[in-house]
Amino acid sequence: MYTAGDVRVEERDDPKIIHPTDAIIRLTATCICGSDLWPYRGVEAADHQVMGHEYVGVVEEVGDDVKNVKVGDFVVGSFVISDNTCEICRSGYQSHCVHSSFVAQAIGTQSEKARIPYADGTLVPTPGHPDDRLIPSLLAASDVLGTGWFAAVAAEAGPGKTVAVVGDGAVGLMGILAARQLGAERIIAMSRHPGRQELARFYGATDIVAERGEEGVAKIKELTDGLGAHSVIEAVGTQESTMQAIGATRPGGHMGFVGVNYDVKIPGIDLFFSGIHVHGGPAPVRRFLPELIQLIWDRKIDPGKVFDLTLPLERAPEGYEAMNERRATKVLLTL
Amino acid sequence: MYTAGDVRVEERDDPKIIHPTDAIIRLTATCICGSDLWPYRGVEAADHQVMGHEYVGVVEEVGDDVKNVKVGDFVVGSFVISDNTCEICRSGYQSHCVHSSFVAQAIGTQSEKARIPYADGTLVPTPGHPDDRLIPSLLAASDVLGTGWFAAVAAEAGPGKTVAVVGDGAVGLMGILAARQLGAERIIAMSRHPGRQELARFYGATDIVAERGEEGVAKIKELTDGLGAHSVIEAVGTQESTMQAIGATRPGGHMGFVGVNYDVKIPGIDLFFSGIHVHGGPAPVRRFLPELIQLIWDRKIDPGKVFDLTLPLERAPEGYEAMNERRATKVLLTL
Repeated sequence: MYTAGDVRVEERDDPKIIHPTDAIIRLTATCICGSDLWPYRGVEAADHQVMGHEYVGVVEEVGDDVKNVKVGDFVVGSFVISDNTCEICRSGYQSHCVHSSFVAQAIGTQSEKARIPYADGTLVPTPGHPDDRLIPSLLAASDVLGTGWFAAVAAEAGPGKTVAVVGDGAVGLMGILAARQLGAERIIAMSRHPGRQELARFYGATDIVAERGEEGVAKIKELTDGLGAHSVIEAVGTQESTMQAIGATRPGGHMGFVGVNYDVKIPGIDLFFSGIHVHGGPAPVRRFLPELIQLIWDRKIDPGKVFDLTLPLERAPEGYEAMNERRATKVLLTL
Repeated sequence: MYTAGDVRVEERDDPKIIHPTDAIIRLTATCICGSDLWPYRGVEAADHQVMGHEYVGVVEEVGDDVKNVKVGDFVVGSFVISDNTCEICRSGYQSHCVHSSFVAQAIGTQSEKARIPYADGTLVPTPGHPDDRLIPSLLAASDVLGTGWFAAVAAEAGPGKTVAVVGDGAVGLMGILAARQLGAERIIAMSRHPGRQELARFYGATDIVAERGEEGVAKIKELTDGLGAHSVIEAVGTQESTMQAIGATRPGGHMGFVGVNYDVKIPGIDLFFSGIHVHGGPAPVRRFLPELIQLIWDRKIDPGKVFDLTLPLERAPEGYEAMNERRATKVLLTL
């Protein structure tokens, strides 16, 4: 991305092993994330930077210290690099690993090949080489599914619970899928976009609320005996959506948030009197990858349906445009 | 309190039963809370209002619908009225009961008698009439102990955990007591006041950190292999202390907060990248009262030591002065 709104596909040197814990992968597919739109829209700075942090592919070369991943393996990796051995990783927070780095800034996987540091800790091989039809779902696991799943876990979605989901983008939709898998009794999607409402229902939403902000909160309370939802997933990241999520959660309930922009400020007093639990941040996708890969392999979940536009990598700029104009929910890039 | 800095003890009419769920108690003791200093200092408005929300005493009269509390019972009650039967109460969040009201605003227990609404849900009888020496500890259970306990529970203090406590006031000290009772391995008190450091050690602190703000965070990280504490109790409620508590918690760890002032604004992005769990608010003291009363009754905990000045109710204004000037941690008022 040269600057906001200006994405180009260029020839670059092939990546090489630098550290003995690195692996080089040849990508099978990659995609464009909602967060890639922040620099595209100028909300974050963009200055001739590599883009992309979601990836599946085949291992081409490994460093001398790599043990768990072999040349030829088909792998899925998290959007955050982790060693998966430090105390923070072992507690399940690999996205905060003491050796963590963000693929988006350090590597950029909207590319044919990529060098993945800490390959043993970051990559998870699939049970075999996947059928082409599984590629979109496995790619989704790399971020958008893993992130929606974490949001649902952070919101403690589960049996007997009413879960409200703020945001009908790809992550919100994956939060719905996760809440359903985790056994939630009722899932309220907050969406005003007919196509996404339909997808929300496909993934397990039982109710749709089109209202936003304070009206949205009032509607959630109306649907929950005036108490609010047990669990709320926040998958937008604006001031309004964050306050909507806090307001929609009942006292003692759980709000899981996985998106945030730099302007959000949460009034301490509102959080205090809400009496809710708040947890979120960059999702520790690595924690969930083995389970998610297996669910996909066994055809128990179909997250790949979240991609509604597929383009070859060379046409990535068109993909950015389509997502920016909300003509596409999520764009898959083929290689 | 007539206005900031102007507290008077005046004759008022005796309270009467209004609703059949009310009880009238004659207070045995009451006290001054750190939060009473907010209007005293003009941080919150004060206009000829009743004061006090902590109380123990003997039931003098009950309404027709009161079943669990009898005339003559010695009782401890929470600083928030609750029915203890609604769905929110049953989930353990009595301070957010659908019928909740704050004793401080609605009743004021710096007085000889008080009307307690929803007596069955709010008051807990002790196993018998207590020895005078137990009165301070039972009174502490009404708020300051219950609040510190909730903070420790919200911070998930427990075996194997390192707990940092921000704030050396009465609530912070009770948080230390609670963390120790809950089995924490290491308890770091953040305090620069020698007398309170001593009390912190009495209640179970294993380490003292005198630094504050970013320096305080750096010190906590230094003591925890660079990771931060598993559990942090925030018992001050300023912007600096809140950010100190967030910064001192390791990714995936838990921050329990029980104080906040109206100016605190938490940057969403800091909360996001911290990866911590946040939970707090007005403590559901009622949830913990049966357990806390029993621990006190059995002399297993001694929270009453937090009172370091005792005055008769008539001299309450001197108590406010002493706490305002930090000459006293917490003032007990006798009747």
